[in-house]
Amino acid sequence: MKKKKKDYPNMICKGINNTISILKSNRFRINRIDVLKNGRAIRNTTINELLIEGKTIFMEKSAFYEKHPDGRTQGIVIEFSGDVTKSNFPDYKNSKDVCLLALDNVEDPQNFGQIIRTSECAGIDGIIFPKHHSAPVTETVLQVSQGAFVNIPLYEVTNLSQSINSLKKNDFWVIGIENSVDAKNWYEMQYSGKILIVAGSEGRGMRKKISNACDFISTIPMQGETNSLNVSAAVSAILFERLRQIKGS
Amino acid sequence: MKKKKKDYPNMICKGINNTISILKSNRFRINRIDVLKNGRAIRNTTINELLIEGKTIFMEKSAFYEKHPDGRTQGIVIEFSGDVTKSNFPDYKNSKDVCLLALDNVEDPQNFGQIIRTSECAGIDGIIFPKHHSAPVTETVLQVSQGAFVNIPLYEVTNLSQSINSLKKNDFWVIGIENSVDAKNWYEMQYSGKILIVAGSEGRGMRKKISNACDFISTIPMQGETNSLNVSAAVSAILFERLRQIKGS
Repeated sequence: MKKKKKDYPNMICKGINNTISILKSNRFRINRIDVLKNGRAIRNTTINELLIEGKTIFMEKSAFYEKHPDGRTQGIVIEFSGDVTKSNFPDYKNSKDVCLLALDNVEDPQNFGQIIRTSECAGIDGIIFPKHHSAPVTETVLQVSQGAFVNIPLYEVTNLSQSINSLKKNDFWVIGIENSVDAKNWYEMQYSGKILIVAGSEGRGMRKKISNACDFISTIPMQGETNSLNVSAAVSAILFERLRQIKGS
Repeated sequence: MKKKKKDYPNMICKGINNTISILKSNRFRINRIDVLKNGRAIRNTTINELLIEGKTIFMEKSAFYEKHPDGRTQGIVIEFSGDVTKSNFPDYKNSKDVCLLALDNVEDPQNFGQIIRTSECAGIDGIIFPKHHSAPVTETVLQVSQGAFVNIPLYEVTNLSQSINSLKKNDFWVIGIENSVDAKNWYEMQYSGKILIVAGSEGRGMRKKISNACDFISTIPMQGETNSLNVSAAVSAILFERLRQIKGS
């Protein structure tokens, strides 16, 4: 049963990008918007058009900074509630190029947030993450995503292997990204059509059963002495290579 | 005049990767290594081979965590001093594929550290940053780079425009990365040969005079609603596209 809107906890996001995304989406219940008088946000035209009367509190410098002492707020903080995740995939039957990204064991909220941001910029169709074996979607994750969480579906699943198998039955090819000498170079893979890219954490990689469920394993060979790329940097390299392949000549 | 080794301030880095890189490099004066007894680091074979007698302090849990309460130390913290930057470019006359990355206005230490890490993994030849208009190379920057700062030259320059012009005279092509509708797609650029890639900050981009000094401007067009990619994600996409071009078929 779907929760009622009021059952979701109050969440807080800071900054102009986040606030614009949340207000534009019409997906959330807006509880309160704190705006710094004569601050940077209030001089932004889009922000001004979107502010909701009755929910917006214009605050003097002293009160605003007393309430929001840390972090770069850019003069605006929004409180909202609602579901930031989705649980069911849409019907991809008639879609041509679809790309989903699954994250296994990615437990750092900074990495999770950055990956959401990068994925939305790279135009993929959604991010899948397991309820366990993942960072939860906290305020930090949303904050780091810079509003991107509103514009890309985040699918929280209870059983990632099952989701992978169900996508396989729907004609998805599954490409795992791992540090492996036996794997193909990341640019030798074909990313067009319906694909699911699976990435693990830097330290532990993905779980064995997830890796086994992949059709292919691809790797980004390290060129230097240090042998591990940050997972969000690896995801960026892969997703933009995919974009190059489907947009390029 | 070059500073004497003892004139450099004491710097602290945490974790296994950082410690291995620093000890292996032989570039720094090692002041102290705190090791947690029965911790993760001491079970690492490479760490064990590199530890320096007389500089290593094996500490009980209580003493170790009292001294290093925050952050993931992995049971090892190294104190060292020395110059983490370089000031003169080597002679690239007989080199074939050389890639340098210049950063202008990148003032976030997390981004700076991530970019160092990604650049080393992508096998480029150095990072140039201006003394002003850049985050300084702090402990946070080094920490986030995960030891990569030891294995890729970091060139701190006083005048970035001058450095760009001097590289141009040495047959480098200069490619600026900017959000611009007039720019070519990032994958349409040729990254082989001697090139300098210039990136600015997410918010402000690079300074006008730096942008004007570029031979080409390239862009990563945004596919989603949010219109800005994190600078370290953008750098990752570009540097691995360059690697694909020079390594690929």
